[in-house]
Order: sequence, then C-alpha cells, then structure tokens
Amino acid sequence: MRKALQQGSNARAERARVQRDRILDAAQRCFSERGFHGASMSMIAETAQMSPGLIYRYFAGKSELIHGIVSRQSELLADDFEQLESGAQHPVDGIVEKYRECASYNHDNQISLRHLDATLLLEIVAESRRDPVIAEAMGLLDQRINHGLGQWLAQSSTSDVSPQRLQARALILRALLDGLKMRQARDPDLDLGLLREGLQDVFPCLQGKAA
Amino acid sequence: MRKALQQGSNARAERARVQRDRILDAAQRCFSERGFHGASMSMIAETAQMSPGLIYRYFAGKSELIHGIVSRQSELLADDFEQLESGAQHPVDGIVEKYRECASYNHDNQISLRHLDATLLLEIVAESRRDPVIAEAMGLLDQRINHGLGQWLAQSSTSDVSPQRLQARALILRALLDGLKMRQARDPDLDLGLLREGLQDVFPCLQGKAA
Repeated sequence: MRKALQQGSNARAERARVQRDRILDAAQRCFSERGFHGASMSMIAETAQMSPGLIYRYFAGKSELIHGIVSRQSELLADDFEQLESGAQHPVDGIVEKYRECASYNHDNQISLRHLDATLLLEIVAESRRDPVIAEAMGLLDQRINHGLGQWLAQSSTSDVSPQRLQARALILRALLDGLKMRQARDPDLDLGLLREGLQDVFPCLQGKAA
Repeated sequence: MRKALQQGSNARAERARVQRDRILDAAQRCFSERGFHGASMSMIAETAQMSPGLIYRYFAGKSELIHGIVSRQSELLADDFEQLESGAQHPVDGIVEKYRECASYNHDNQISLRHLDATLLLEIVAESRRDPVIAEAMGLLDQRINHGLGQWLAQSSTSDVSPQRLQARALILRALLDGLKMRQARDPDLDLGLLREGLQDVFPCLQGKAA
C-alpha cells in the first residue's frame, strides 16, 4: 500500500517535470521569436498546446518563465565548463565553435533550445535591472559563469599568478564572451576566421603566458 | 528683402534644431527610466513639455526617436576617439574612467545624456534585430566605433602587424568594450581596481607588444 502511494507520487512528480519542460520549451521559442515584450502568455499556451490555466499552475507569469529558462540554461553550462576544464578542446576552438553554432541557428531563423538566443539574452539582462525575479535568476547564472571561468583560468595559468589577478582576468574574459554574444545579435555573419585570429592573439595574455 | 528671408529661414532652422534636441533629451530620459517598451510617446511629450502633436511633426514614433538618440551618440563619440588618438590618456585609463562615470550615474539613479544608459543600449541592440529604423542607426554607430578602434589600433601597434590582424584585434577590443557595457547593466558596483588590472594584462596582446 505504501509502495503504491510512493509510485503514484513519483509518477506525479515526473509528469510535472515533463509539463514544466514543455512549457519552458514553448516559452523559450515564443520569447526568442517575438521578444520578451512581444510574446504573451496566451501565445505561449498555444505553442505548448496547453490551456493558459494549466501554465499558470506552474508559472505565475512571464518573469517566472524567464527564471525557469535561465535556470535551465545555468544547468546546461555545467557541460560546457566540464569540457573546458578537461582540456579536450582549446578554449579558442570552443568559443569559435559555439559562435558558429549559435550564428547558424540565428541565420536560418531557427530557435535552438540548447543555446539562449542572443537577442533574448540582451532583453533578459535589460529586464533584470527592473524585475527582481529575473534579477535573481541572472544572479545565479552570473555566479555560475564567473566561478567556471575562474576555475578554468586558475587551472590553465602559470602557477605564479595571484588570486586577485586571476579574478581580474576572469572579469575580462567574461566581458569578452558577453560582448561576443552581443555581437551575435548585431552580426550573425561575422567572419569566424577573424574571430579565431583575434582570440588567439589575446588568450596568451589572459593565461599569463605572455606577461 | 532676400536677406530678411534668409535670416527668417536660418532662425526657423535653428528653432527646429533646438526643439529636436529638447525632444531627444526627453526621450532619452524616459527610455532610460522606463525602458524602450515601458516609455510612451505621451510620457515623452509630457517630459519635454510639448504637445504630442508637435513631437510627431519631428519624429514619426519611438523607433525614429531611438534613431535620433543613437545618431547623436555617434557624433559624441568623435570626441572620445580624438582623445584616444591624441595619446593624451592611456586607453586603460580612458576605459576605467568611462566605466566609473557611467556607473556613478547608474548608481545614483540619475540619467546622463552624455552616455547611453547601459540597459537602454541592450534594449536598442535587441530591437535592432526586428526594427529596420533602429537597425540603420545601430549600423552607423557600429561602423563609427569599429573605424575609430581600427584607426587607433593601427596607430598604436607595432608596424609589422598585418591589416587583417588589426581587424581581428579590433573585433576583440570591440567585444570587450561591449561586454563591459553589458556588465554595467548587471553590476554597476564593479571593483574598478580589478577592471584596471585585467585591462592592463590584456592590452599588451591587443597592441601586439607581448607577442
């Protein structure tokens, strides 16, 4: 009897998880296509093929949907940082490859749920100045990215670099990556050979191998 | 008689210029405070202390106002690049100083018309993906910034750097500056000492002096 109850509760939790994910997929699509302000809850409900009432049972509004999307994105980053720290791919190759992937989606007007659309990210950062729910999600994402970049720099730099210096370089690397994401929104057809050449020039300084 | 007509026409042109500027000041304030989507034409009219009808005689809508704000900003950049090229200030000092100025406005919840608010810039870049009027203004701003950075890099780098390499470095420098602007929206209280240290580490690579 207790076991049957437990199984029922597990199945409910699993169904809720699947539904949440389906709603977030639909929301990410709508926000990427129409923008944060252009997309509506009813549009998202239609895309998810659910009633608006069911969506509101999981998410109180658009801010909570963005929170869910950003949190999911934070989790996906774990893979990226694992690959970076494993040293299997040079970070310059990793960055160029990521840019290429995102740009090709952007170029074909397709939405990738794996990557946060560059234009949507800019809107989310802008909203985070005014919206505490979105600010919380962005704060966690920021922490995760800064921690990951800091770890990788510590591991890949010469051993005589001070912790403060690593932090300073992590700040610069972060700004560079954010700026490239911004560039994606402006210029999806960027010359990737040029990007690679520029990154190759600047990485030795970030890793303290040219100082 | 012809002279009187000419004087009348000059005075009209001057009055139009002053009114345009007054409208753009009000629009920049409203957009910075409420966001591109949150600000309305009637709010802007009220801030400018003009009738909405008069505003529509100069600007067809919010996109045209953003076009005017971005164009004005493009012109102001000429001063920044002049200072950069004169060599009077090290670029690291220039960037840290600019960050400090913008952050202090942001921190006091004040609006500076001299600097484009970081959050507003993110919204403008996002809108430029969907709005051809805004895209045109951003295209001109992009060209101006990229040209200015390219000129400065060419002038300040060792002479054996190829044009393609300069272009690659200008791309990286541009991304870095954009990313710092994005950081401003997220983190106006950033440690400026850390920023300076990071920039000092990375600039030698951008100027080819550490290769």
